[in-house]
Amino acid sequence: MKTALSALGRRTAPPAISWLMKTALSRPNLISLAAGFTDNATLPTEISRRLLNDILRSPKTGRPALQYGTTAGESHLRKLTASHLHKLDSSSFSSSSSSLKPEARMRMSMKDEDDSYSPEHVLITGGSQQLLYMTLEALCDEGDIVLVEDPTYFVFLSILQSRNLQARGVKLERDGIDLVHLEKVLERLKKSGELRRVKALYLVTYFQNPTGATTSLAKKRAVLKLLKKFERAAGHPLYLIEDAAYRELSFPGRADLPVSPAEPQLRPAAPPTALTLPGASERVIYAGTYSKPFATGVRVGFGILPEPVYTAVLRIKGNHDFGTANLLQHLLARALATRLYDRHVAKIRKNYARKAAVMRRAMAKHFPASVEIWEAGGGLYFWARLPEGIATGVKSKVFQAALKADVLYVPGELCYADDPVRARPDHEMRLSFGSASDENIREGINRLGAVLKKFV
Amino acid sequence: MKTALSALGRRTAPPAISWLMKTALSRPNLISLAAGFTDNATLPTEISRRLLNDILRSPKTGRPALQYGTTAGESHLRKLTASHLHKLDSSSFSSSSSSLKPEARMRMSMKDEDDSYSPEHVLITGGSQQLLYMTLEALCDEGDIVLVEDPTYFVFLSILQSRNLQARGVKLERDGIDLVHLEKVLERLKKSGELRRVKALYLVTYFQNPTGATTSLAKKRAVLKLLKKFERAAGHPLYLIEDAAYRELSFPGRADLPVSPAEPQLRPAAPPTALTLPGASERVIYAGTYSKPFATGVRVGFGILPEPVYTAVLRIKGNHDFGTANLLQHLLARALATRLYDRHVAKIRKNYARKAAVMRRAMAKHFPASVEIWEAGGGLYFWARLPEGIATGVKSKVFQAALKADVLYVPGELCYADDPVRARPDHEMRLSFGSASDENIREGINRLGAVLKKFV
Repeated sequence: MKTALSALGRRTAPPAISWLMKTALSRPNLISLAAGFTDNATLPTEISRRLLNDILRSPKTGRPALQYGTTAGESHLRKLTASHLHKLDSSSFSSSSSSLKPEARMRMSMKDEDDSYSPEHVLITGGSQQLLYMTLEALCDEGDIVLVEDPTYFVFLSILQSRNLQARGVKLERDGIDLVHLEKVLERLKKSGELRRVKALYLVTYFQNPTGATTSLAKKRAVLKLLKKFERAAGHPLYLIEDAAYRELSFPGRADLPVSPAEPQLRPAAPPTALTLPGASERVIYAGTYSKPFATGVRVGFGILPEPVYTAVLRIKGNHDFGTANLLQHLLARALATRLYDRHVAKIRKNYARKAAVMRRAMAKHFPASVEIWEAGGGLYFWARLPEGIATGVKSKVFQAALKADVLYVPGELCYADDPVRARPDHEMRLSFGSASDENIREGINRLGAVLKKFV
Repeated sequence: MKTALSALGRRTAPPAISWLMKTALSRPNLISLAAGFTDNATLPTEISRRLLNDILRSPKTGRPALQYGTTAGESHLRKLTASHLHKLDSSSFSSSSSSLKPEARMRMSMKDEDDSYSPEHVLITGGSQQLLYMTLEALCDEGDIVLVEDPTYFVFLSILQSRNLQARGVKLERDGIDLVHLEKVLERLKKSGELRRVKALYLVTYFQNPTGATTSLAKKRAVLKLLKKFERAAGHPLYLIEDAAYRELSFPGRADLPVSPAEPQLRPAAPPTALTLPGASERVIYAGTYSKPFATGVRVGFGILPEPVYTAVLRIKGNHDFGTANLLQHLLARALATRLYDRHVAKIRKNYARKAAVMRRAMAKHFPASVEIWEAGGGLYFWARLPEGIATGVKSKVFQAALKADVLYVPGELCYADDPVRARPDHEMRLSFGSASDENIREGINRLGAVLKKFV
């Protein structure tokens, strides 16, 4: 008898790193620099306890938190989310080098675009992952194409694989996507007649997973222009999906932390989102989350979406779950309203900056000089590039030797789309300082360095 | 320029009752007997506060609750869920009329089937709704057929509509699906060559939404047999999706509550699930939830699924959200482990039994005798059937008059699948006693009765 599974059910592959995770469990002394988990020690147990107590103590606030809400999300949280984003973008402008007063700059840059921050366009979701999934459901038929950074977030690639969508990689530079290459890719797709299958460009714009790269505002502006230019040939809107999951995990400024004077360009202030740009309210799909900055066990993400995508995704969510758990939404709303959220984020930014510094110093000490490190200004990851030709993939000698030395990384190859146009690079690794202790970061990098010295 | 939306994005209709909900908001004096919300007054604010305090007070338990978990769900909760279900099924057997000792009966009935309750087959989800969605993703290609009760849960119908799946209605009787009609439908599909498109039969087996009907164990057994019989012609397994969302909301036995002696058959003890039957571990997909019995704002559901469906759904969930919010899972696990969950459920069962009695008495007093009421032994709904020919749909005179009288119900027509074989019935209504106060139940039924007297 045949299986009853659908094509999607048969096709959907196991998660790229499930094998890695299982491996980790079977080696008790393994130090994992692979997991994208956040730091256990700074999880907001006390803040959450206090806020949940406040919410649940009185029936007036407790009962609504334990009842169904609406599919779009709790209205107070939607408002707070819109103003939170507006505030983040405003402070990005303020901290830029312009000599204009903040308000004047805000008015200049965002005057016609405040519509982007309307609570009406905010959708609360079960983490930003759910938003990404539903957005692809709303936009893409089988065989459609999504442009992605090369490399990119591997779970996004899993969605594409599962839904039988095509990815096309666009080269990534340290300040974001390679614009010349993006235009080349779009031109090629236009010539081959495939442009009408392209629906969106997906960018992880802050402290990217896996490279740590941050997209400059200038690049976001140029990207929106380029997409617009190709819309006529595509025959439909080309959306920019801006995934800002790591946005709030920027390291505090240089005053707090010594940075190598040789690399001053590597600690940029987090730039504003594409939402601040002209035309954004029609073409930018913004994916954000509270899970990473607040608590990964409190899965609340959000999207800001233009019509008609907003309505389509809202209806799809009505079928997925008709609304994210209200208790979590009320918790986040109260954390934001009391500013305990802001205080917590300030604290974890310092913590991750410290852990990044621990890893950076360890790499400087133990890694061969020929390993290129992409340094991030925030987030949870470093990107280490071995000389080309030295493979780091799951079946490589380097990976096997690292495993034998009880240290685990995410092979770079897992972060590259299947793209018929190029071979999949396989000489890089993602190293996370998110969940490991300082001591384990040092020891893990020590072990990995010893392995690398044998092969590089 | 054309839209960039996918076929699914363009096709997905607004929720069946979104219009009803908006209407409710615009009439401040409206009494809604439409919403499927649970009772606000009995939401477990104090229990939740206490348990969350206990979890978050210590870093040892607090941090894991605020961290990412695994896609399948928190292992303790999966174990507790498996044993909770086993216990529920055991007590269903114990309360049956057999003279065998409970253990002997258990051994007889479930001996080879305990495998059905393995934690390995349990998947924790964002409400049972998410499980239903992912199950249909895993099983059905566009155009595939799912058999449903006539009438059935309208959000399940929404998923089918969105994903371009076909529904075929099977008549529903007071003790569950009409077996003769089910066989007729399967025979017809076999003859027309459509049987190979059929993937599953979906039953809401306890206090069904919308009718309140409960499927007897005998019917479940016969259903599994019938499906098995047609598998050869289908060429693949035919699954039974058992949605047991309302299972734990059974009203306590007659000792607690007076029941009309004229209707002794209307308060059956909740029968065991299909999981207790031979062959279940290969063909039954069980969808359960903690949201309805515990708190609808704590969206935690679960599934028990046979292979290869389990693995397919697990992988799909990896792309949806790679795991339900851990904090909610830890809350439920602790509620179950401390038995505070059981105490809470015992309390709300009494509460809903009382509210059902309030509605029943009000209907007896105010409704015309020609309105047939399906009485449930639990859950949140009554099903009221007007004489055929008297329409109750959104555009009907009855509905408009009810709205004018400031009382809202769910029109029966919304709960019937689009089925080419029959006209959609339109003379029924779902009346919920879940969220309205006793006073509003009385007044709402009073208003509705006055309307009905004009038309019936």
